[in-house]
Amino acid sequence: MSQSTAPLSTDPRPDLDADDVPPRIDAPDVAVLEELLLGRWAEDRRASRKLAGQERFHKIEGMSRDDHRERVLGQLFDLVAEGAVHRAFPEEFGGRDNHGGNIAAFEELVTADPSLQIKSGVQWGLFGSAVLHLGTEEHHRRFLPGILDLSVPGAFAMTEIGHGSDVASLGTTATYDPEAEEFVVHTPFEAATKRYLGNAALHGRDAVVFAQLITRGVNHGVHAFYVHLRDDRGEPLPGITVGDDGQKGGLNGIDNGRLAFDRIRIPRTHLLDRYGAVAVDGTYSSPIESPGRRFFTMIGTLVQGRVSLTGAAVAASKVGLYGAITYGNQRRQFNASSPIEEEVLMDYQLHQRRLLPRLATTVALNFAHEELLAKFDDVFSGADDSDENRQELETLAAALKPTATHHALDVLQECREACGGAGYISENRFTSLYADLDIYVTFEGDNNVLLQLVAKRLLQDYAAEFKDADFGVLSRYVASQAQSTVMHRFGLRRALQSVQDTGDERRSANWFKQADVQRELLAERVRQSVADVAGELRSAAKLPQAEQARVFNRHQAELIDAARAHADLLVWEAFDDGLSKVEHEGTRETLTRLRDLYALTRIEDSLDWYLLHGRISVQRARTLSPYINRLLERLRPHAQDLVEAFGYTQDEHVRMEVSSGAEARRQDEASEYHRKLRASSEGPVDEKVLQRRAAKQRRGARR
Amino acid sequence: MSQSTAPLSTDPRPDLDADDVPPRIDAPDVAVLEELLLGRWAEDRRASRKLAGQERFHKIEGMSRDDHRERVLGQLFDLVAEGAVHRAFPEEFGGRDNHGGNIAAFEELVTADPSLQIKSGVQWGLFGSAVLHLGTEEHHRRFLPGILDLSVPGAFAMTEIGHGSDVASLGTTATYDPEAEEFVVHTPFEAATKRYLGNAALHGRDAVVFAQLITRGVNHGVHAFYVHLRDDRGEPLPGITVGDDGQKGGLNGIDNGRLAFDRIRIPRTHLLDRYGAVAVDGTYSSPIESPGRRFFTMIGTLVQGRVSLTGAAVAASKVGLYGAITYGNQRRQFNASSPIEEEVLMDYQLHQRRLLPRLATTVALNFAHEELLAKFDDVFSGADDSDENRQELETLAAALKPTATHHALDVLQECREACGGAGYISENRFTSLYADLDIYVTFEGDNNVLLQLVAKRLLQDYAAEFKDADFGVLSRYVASQAQSTVMHRFGLRRALQSVQDTGDERRSANWFKQADVQRELLAERVRQSVADVAGELRSAAKLPQAEQARVFNRHQAELIDAARAHADLLVWEAFDDGLSKVEHEGTRETLTRLRDLYALTRIEDSLDWYLLHGRISVQRARTLSPYINRLLERLRPHAQDLVEAFGYTQDEHVRMEVSSGAEARRQDEASEYHRKLRASSEGPVDEKVLQRRAAKQRRGARR
Repeated sequence: MSQSTAPLSTDPRPDLDADDVPPRIDAPDVAVLEELLLGRWAEDRRASRKLAGQERFHKIEGMSRDDHRERVLGQLFDLVAEGAVHRAFPEEFGGRDNHGGNIAAFEELVTADPSLQIKSGVQWGLFGSAVLHLGTEEHHRRFLPGILDLSVPGAFAMTEIGHGSDVASLGTTATYDPEAEEFVVHTPFEAATKRYLGNAALHGRDAVVFAQLITRGVNHGVHAFYVHLRDDRGEPLPGITVGDDGQKGGLNGIDNGRLAFDRIRIPRTHLLDRYGAVAVDGTYSSPIESPGRRFFTMIGTLVQGRVSLTGAAVAASKVGLYGAITYGNQRRQFNASSPIEEEVLMDYQLHQRRLLPRLATTVALNFAHEELLAKFDDVFSGADDSDENRQELETLAAALKPTATHHALDVLQECREACGGAGYISENRFTSLYADLDIYVTFEGDNNVLLQLVAKRLLQDYAAEFKDADFGVLSRYVASQAQSTVMHRFGLRRALQSVQDTGDERRSANWFKQADVQRELLAERVRQSVADVAGELRSAAKLPQAEQARVFNRHQAELIDAARAHADLLVWEAFDDGLSKVEHEGTRETLTRLRDLYALTRIEDSLDWYLLHGRISVQRARTLSPYINRLLERLRPHAQDLVEAFGYTQDEHVRMEVSSGAEARRQDEASEYHRKLRASSEGPVDEKVLQRRAAKQRRGARR
Repeated sequence: MSQSTAPLSTDPRPDLDADDVPPRIDAPDVAVLEELLLGRWAEDRRASRKLAGQERFHKIEGMSRDDHRERVLGQLFDLVAEGAVHRAFPEEFGGRDNHGGNIAAFEELVTADPSLQIKSGVQWGLFGSAVLHLGTEEHHRRFLPGILDLSVPGAFAMTEIGHGSDVASLGTTATYDPEAEEFVVHTPFEAATKRYLGNAALHGRDAVVFAQLITRGVNHGVHAFYVHLRDDRGEPLPGITVGDDGQKGGLNGIDNGRLAFDRIRIPRTHLLDRYGAVAVDGTYSSPIESPGRRFFTMIGTLVQGRVSLTGAAVAASKVGLYGAITYGNQRRQFNASSPIEEEVLMDYQLHQRRLLPRLATTVALNFAHEELLAKFDDVFSGADDSDENRQELETLAAALKPTATHHALDVLQECREACGGAGYISENRFTSLYADLDIYVTFEGDNNVLLQLVAKRLLQDYAAEFKDADFGVLSRYVASQAQSTVMHRFGLRRALQSVQDTGDERRSANWFKQADVQRELLAERVRQSVADVAGELRSAAKLPQAEQARVFNRHQAELIDAARAHADLLVWEAFDDGLSKVEHEGTRETLTRLRDLYALTRIEDSLDWYLLHGRISVQRARTLSPYINRLLERLRPHAQDLVEAFGYTQDEHVRMEVSSGAEARRQDEASEYHRKLRASSEGPVDEKVLQRRAAKQRRGARR
């Protein structure tokens, strides 16, 4: 460690170092930082971490699928016994109407076993939540107690083999029969088979089934129905075919499976009819007139899954980084700078490059997730459940869930590789967490589909800006867009930059580390990307629909890029807001530099865009990577403090051999052995040393 | 499919399309392409694919670790019975001295089960190969028969807990005792415990152990020793402690474990003494005087592992792409361009962007691996085993192994995500292959360590160019380098580009698709990156060693980038050479465009570098992504042909539900159901349609 904080006088490039990078960063206060990262629902997180730290909840690597499924079911009963699952439910059912705290607590279970987190999510977050949010009081009274105490494990039967993300196109039908006052639930073709449902293969007694509601010859779109699946002995009821999805890439503690219905009949009252009811005579009614809006309101409860996956992904990233950075601070390899002692891995620039930007992004996502959770709580608690806030919540979740879940895979893979072969052994959990979290990127809304939702929202917002503009304004705007290959709104700013660069290259880093420069760069990328695509789409507005779709398709990749850039900006804003509250100086300074690292590595990743759009001059851009490298050197001494501040403990939550201290003990033992050998006269001499001596003697003899 | 080959007249940007992208690409001849991709050792590949296609060799997903280990051991005996393991060994032991064909055949086993490939590699590629290459004829006669017929399964005991990639620093000692004429093999501290060794936990009877050879008080460096591990009942011999590495991220069909030695004694003759011998009296002798060169010669046999991992990674990438592209051509989702039929996934630009560049890279790596294999065969057959060719082989392997193995993980992950939830189910093998191949990126030489070897070689070559130059030349060169932020050797070329761009933007794509432009761009990136770092290092040449090491460390990330760029260039050259041999026009045209796609996506990935170094003008760079997108549209109709040309069959090698045709059958059934419903008068009407009709009537009434 001492090397990276050595005095700067030995730096071979002092001209770039002197006044633009702090020579050292004050240490953060770990306790202060931990509290900050725990956020508003610290108490719920702590309580859940305490549970998750208990051995009975821990995943046992290599356990058979059958045993793992039973173990996780048992853990769910333990959670019930601990009173850990009621937070989000109404007080009359033993709950606390604590929506944010509930999600926070569930997220923390991921450190024990992601199967536990997800199976809990299926039972209480999806199945229970659907009854709570889509059902009425009568449904609550009938169904919630059994769901809450787990006497009725259930499935959330939405996805079909033929349709995942496109819920509106589901094939399952529920046709009302007024004679019998029953719905006939049916799987009309194989593609409509419900699939990948947790609790379906084995444990699910009941299910909430999503199907096209048909009454009096009209299809009112997808609605939710409460369906009994199995009898008391666990056998599927007549007309219900159950299948087991078998082995999966991960999450094998969950019994995912499939369901098909052969015209089974359920009572009329099993329609969860808060947003759409069918009277005895078959008359349909709904408080929401527009079928489209009704549909989106009903599937709006899905947002809570996205929120909790975001938080769980951040938690898993922290566990991975704790393991790899702790190991990187102990593991020695090769001896570049000293013939005796090898370097610690974290001293290598490449290792810093691999781990520290990912650490910065993880901290950034911690803050961003906290904002998402607060918005979620506002909406679900009713504090602010306006349509606008609901939409904002959905867009924010659609931006952050893909960002955080893909980030977690990236972090876990890099951490596993950074630990070499040890990273591959299951006792180090990287591969296990990766395998379990892999599915997070495509379930509860495929990441790419979610990013397209974000992109569409960005286009809508962009269009709304010009809603009241007359045609002249619009056409002028479009015209200026069309010219953007050579000129754009920021042409002036670019010119100023260039002047500054020519004047003094050293000031470049001072520019990059300004918060408003970072914000502006990240924001401009979103604005301009959206404007560019909007311009293209506008020019196709008069073509036939199929052609418009083609034009849209030809910009799909750009739109996804714009959505990602938007997420980067949101995350940066949250990070910047979050650190502004910190009073302890060292903590704020470390976080500020970590924010810089986050912003600048995001900008570095799309540096071609900034250059192509003239947002950063070539001269300035050339200083970016060297500046980031120096930032890494300055942050590196605090890496261990930062992962300690995540608040996870080695024994309870991390549980990896690489971070247990065993590596340092082995290194010490080996060093001591070599030290003694060198000190004694008995140790063997290296052949290389002998040859060097002989060569010296020969030279001496020749003289 | 028809949409992407629709006439161009509807293209909203005809100005960019007309003359720079071929309106359509002739179809490849699948049989011709298959033969080309099979390469020089087609016969060995076909024979091995035939075996790998048999059910008895297939991985059973979800099998317990114990059962999987026994199954794979049994498969190894089956391989022996089939005469499939002798190819590389001398004729007197039943072999055929067929080194290239041997590797090609082993690579193909990966489609059956990567555990089978790697356990075979441990037995015959590492353990057997060490005896063959490091031992003498006496060792061959004594040990090879048992190794070849698997009556003696063995471990390759090189890696230790404390040292993976840094083999020279191993801690295990083998000290010669002239009294007893024995070596004393010892693990002096815990970090020297041998670890992650295939066959060590259970099946290994013997092992080749790498240890510091000490005789007469001199340490002659790491040598290989033949050591008995277990008795006939499978119990470890006295003084040998065996451990089991337990569950791993993948490859659980292999019994990886650890070995520690407590002063065990082995006969003097068990030193594999081809490159270093100890006489009865303890006198050491070696045909290679330099201990450094001797060491690198001995570990030179490791290159064959790197070669075979490269090929296996390419094979696994092909299997993944076959699955995901076949599914992408059948799966429909959302209906952007038609209210009735949904789009096939491969019609989406994003899906093309996700899969086709990876397809292009896979084909490129196929060609590159073929060249690697040819060089390997030259060296190991003795056709050209000059030091220079050996070094070239090692550098090529060090460049391609990281490229191909990281590529395979990237491909498998993207393919799994491109199949959504289905991609996560083990019956679709993406996650299983990913988990098994994960370790390929860090074993047999950690990818980042190998890339550093490549980078060092590039620096050496660069320095050699100036070896005979006088100081004046050198300093002038350095001076011109120092100016490279504003001026460089290619300043003139940049200027010419800009002129052309201003003249006619349409010509830009014509520029990008020229082979020598692609070559030059890829080559310049290597040359200039190396020159930049060399300049920095040169300026630090007079500093103390520790400071020099620091300067080197500060450019580690750049060096890795340069090594990656070098690999890109090598792969491109191989692709370009490979396609030049093709006579069938459509095949050549498809491959040429695929080569363009490979080159241009590599360039796009480091576009910031090209812009920062003035190698591509901003105007031209702006046309790159749109051009790639159009290339994707043109290649997309041939995607299925391309994956078919890999020569793997669904039933024998791919074995995924997603590519079985089941998805298309389900889609057809669902379409037929909806078609009938629309045709009949009984189908329900959508509420949305009713509302639209009602609104129309209201408007009519008001008029």
